[in-house]
Amino acid sequence: MAEKPKTNALKARLPRGLVDRHAGTIKATERMLAAIREVYERYGFEPVETPLIEYTDALGKFLPDQDRPNEGVFSFQDDDEQWLSLRYDLTAPLARYVAENFDALPKPYRSYRAGWVFRNEKPGPGRFRQFMQFDADTIGAASPAADAEMCMMMADTLEALGLERGQYVIRVNNRKVLDGVMEAIGLAGEENAGRRLTVLRAIDKLDKFGPQGVRLLLGEGRKDESGDFTKGAGLDDASIDKMLAYVGTASDSGAFVSLRKLVEGSQSGLSGVGELEEIETLIKAAGYGPDRIKIDPSVVRGLEYYTGPVFEAELLFETVNEKGEPARFGSIGGGGRYDGLVGRFRSESVPGTGFSIGVSRLMAALSALGKISAAPEPGPVVVTVFDRDRMGDYQRMVKVLRDAGIRAELYLGGSGPKAQLKYADKRNSPCVVIQGGDEKAKGVVQIKDLALGKQMSADIADNATWREERPAQVEVPESDLVAAVRRIVEGDA
Amino acid sequence: MAEKPKTNALKARLPRGLVDRHAGTIKATERMLAAIREVYERYGFEPVETPLIEYTDALGKFLPDQDRPNEGVFSFQDDDEQWLSLRYDLTAPLARYVAENFDALPKPYRSYRAGWVFRNEKPGPGRFRQFMQFDADTIGAASPAADAEMCMMMADTLEALGLERGQYVIRVNNRKVLDGVMEAIGLAGEENAGRRLTVLRAIDKLDKFGPQGVRLLLGEGRKDESGDFTKGAGLDDASIDKMLAYVGTASDSGAFVSLRKLVEGSQSGLSGVGELEEIETLIKAAGYGPDRIKIDPSVVRGLEYYTGPVFEAELLFETVNEKGEPARFGSIGGGGRYDGLVGRFRSESVPGTGFSIGVSRLMAALSALGKISAAPEPGPVVVTVFDRDRMGDYQRMVKVLRDAGIRAELYLGGSGPKAQLKYADKRNSPCVVIQGGDEKAKGVVQIKDLALGKQMSADIADNATWREERPAQVEVPESDLVAAVRRIVEGDA
Repeated sequence: MAEKPKTNALKARLPRGLVDRHAGTIKATERMLAAIREVYERYGFEPVETPLIEYTDALGKFLPDQDRPNEGVFSFQDDDEQWLSLRYDLTAPLARYVAENFDALPKPYRSYRAGWVFRNEKPGPGRFRQFMQFDADTIGAASPAADAEMCMMMADTLEALGLERGQYVIRVNNRKVLDGVMEAIGLAGEENAGRRLTVLRAIDKLDKFGPQGVRLLLGEGRKDESGDFTKGAGLDDASIDKMLAYVGTASDSGAFVSLRKLVEGSQSGLSGVGELEEIETLIKAAGYGPDRIKIDPSVVRGLEYYTGPVFEAELLFETVNEKGEPARFGSIGGGGRYDGLVGRFRSESVPGTGFSIGVSRLMAALSALGKISAAPEPGPVVVTVFDRDRMGDYQRMVKVLRDAGIRAELYLGGSGPKAQLKYADKRNSPCVVIQGGDEKAKGVVQIKDLALGKQMSADIADNATWREERPAQVEVPESDLVAAVRRIVEGDA
Repeated sequence: MAEKPKTNALKARLPRGLVDRHAGTIKATERMLAAIREVYERYGFEPVETPLIEYTDALGKFLPDQDRPNEGVFSFQDDDEQWLSLRYDLTAPLARYVAENFDALPKPYRSYRAGWVFRNEKPGPGRFRQFMQFDADTIGAASPAADAEMCMMMADTLEALGLERGQYVIRVNNRKVLDGVMEAIGLAGEENAGRRLTVLRAIDKLDKFGPQGVRLLLGEGRKDESGDFTKGAGLDDASIDKMLAYVGTASDSGAFVSLRKLVEGSQSGLSGVGELEEIETLIKAAGYGPDRIKIDPSVVRGLEYYTGPVFEAELLFETVNEKGEPARFGSIGGGGRYDGLVGRFRSESVPGTGFSIGVSRLMAALSALGKISAAPEPGPVVVTVFDRDRMGDYQRMVKVLRDAGIRAELYLGGSGPKAQLKYADKRNSPCVVIQGGDEKAKGVVQIKDLALGKQMSADIADNATWREERPAQVEVPESDLVAAVRRIVEGDA
């Protein structure tokens, strides 16, 4: 039955930006997702899952004035020539789902889901074309209490994953307040959209360049060390002072008074400050201090997309970046209020607020902290094959071990004893079971402790002690197989 | 911030053949998958997951002599104009994975994975364009012991899922034996490929038409009740007798003698009988009788695809089909040996054997047997909002309940008390917590038992008894909130 060797064999390779996942990662991810789910369930959220494929128009990913989809999504036509796309996030499909099932759903509707999303973009380090998000959303609740709940749930989730106070903070801002400040300095209206974007980008550089750098970016512009010049937003000094006062607003009892003054004259800005104040009242009532959730006007991420409060979960501990320099871990997720999304499908607007966790980034953070490990677990016990004509005997031993709840396998390859031990080693097996003709005649089996063998060679000093306590190979009657193997497996655990 | 009402709102709908999954189904599926995983792990298999997208050529899904992919797969080009496809099963990506990581993997390599697969086909009842498979494979083991292990693992899995002896059977056949019989009646060679296919199709109808019907299909042909004629394979009587003797071979001690006679003269056929015999020896040694795993030459499903032993997991209990008629549940999965698959990527052939479970079909079977339920679980406790200016108080109560491990939520909508009760009912909440101004002044809360309320109206006879034991609404001091709610929640569980 052997196939003929192929001279022009196909190359086995994955497209760029896609990765295979191995046992350690799969199990560590599953443990992490289970911990997140548990918190979300306690908050009354329930799972819902949508397919990975949607109509392109339902995702809102057609290019303006073109009948071809946006390049950022993977798209294809079905047998009826309709454009389908792989989802690029979990929010757009949820909006479609809620709109499609609007009358049947309880409102407000709280739900969560983890799933793969796809981006048709050039992949790079840490940038994948398939990656996992974990989202929670509350649809149909206009109240800032829904936003406050998102923030509390995120804070609880991070602690459920093992993060300690001081290692994270949920930062909260409000698009309406920033818009109000910009309105107050004369940047309202369509004609100023470009300048507003420049202002947003300038504020986003606060961490990097400090207030002085941001001042330049808000004014005439800034020249960096290499001499490159970034044109500024061209604000006058009074306006720049106002913007810097805004982003520098401290999270204390006076914050809301200051913010109200900064947005003076903007109705929407004032309502935004009111929302932030309500969020603050609710989280305080529930006992969450600013060490966990903090109003922070310098948060600008996602402000273009959201319509009200925005949240960002930031990890505060230091880690080492790709260049080996110490760096803050940074954001592992964010979200906010997006009142327009479900409305795309309906004649009325439907309020919604949500939070999305980047699963791989969070995994990386937890690994860096030693809170989760993707190290391989012990493998199965391997019953080796010494006499090929006694496969039935070996099969029976494997069965006895499995029936006792011990992970066990029969060696299924065609190699000899030495290669079988190497195989067991590669499998990370705790021990192997050996029965040759002599052992069979005596009614015994040999059990070789592989973990102990490794430890003995790694730790020669303690060699003698180890050998006394647990010899690396034991001979036991066949009837003691399970008990003897269990001692080794449990000793390793 | 309200969006303007849209007059031409987009229609919210899913493409045909795709479905959303709700809490009950998601959780029931997860429980089922966990039970399967536990058995596979005990057998020494480990998880591995590949991405949902592969190069089209790696899946082997280019149309012959064309540079466009097969219509049965969803395909698209990336930014380098290379053809990518969504995987249509879990076997082709595994072959790519094994070939790509060949030297690093232990061999034999046992692995399992559950995942979504996609078909670009016309969907129909029970036919989806996205569905889930759960596969286990052993790569690099030429021994029939690997095939025997697959069968034993499937039998153990079905019992771990709650099926009893007699409700299922794993049927085993061998492509080489069938080929050997066909060789023996003169149907070898490329020129007889068409007739061999007709013979396969005829055998596949044994359940439906019985031996007499199959005899006609193997000979001149068969006319059905409506008068439609199906042309037969045109075999002579001696050949037909041989084929019918083959498919009718009973699974007893004489089976292998009969089979050897039927394939007389075919080297490959004889080796196939030897493999079946070895499988039989191993499963018997491990204590699996023909009530669990049975050699059955009438199994033809997948015989075109596989190269050696094939397996089919069949459920034997009766159920009711779409027309309301009693029917056997039938197959919920199958597999076999496919020695050519990894070889597509390498200059040498790599033996492999595997088994694939259709997750939705198995779910349907377990639901029909009452072994698994997708019924909604109890929802969270709802803390209602009576006085809008006391949201902080209500938020605190929710927090206290959650901290005690009780699923709880604050009502986040804008409606009054009556609508809030209706909401809690829709959420399947065990109870709601109410605190108006009077209760606040007295330092108490009202707890309304919704499940009891429903039961009382459904079961009027026992009304008096119930009312005595657990009144539908209780007033307790705020400090007793957790204890009182817990009594109700646990009483419902």
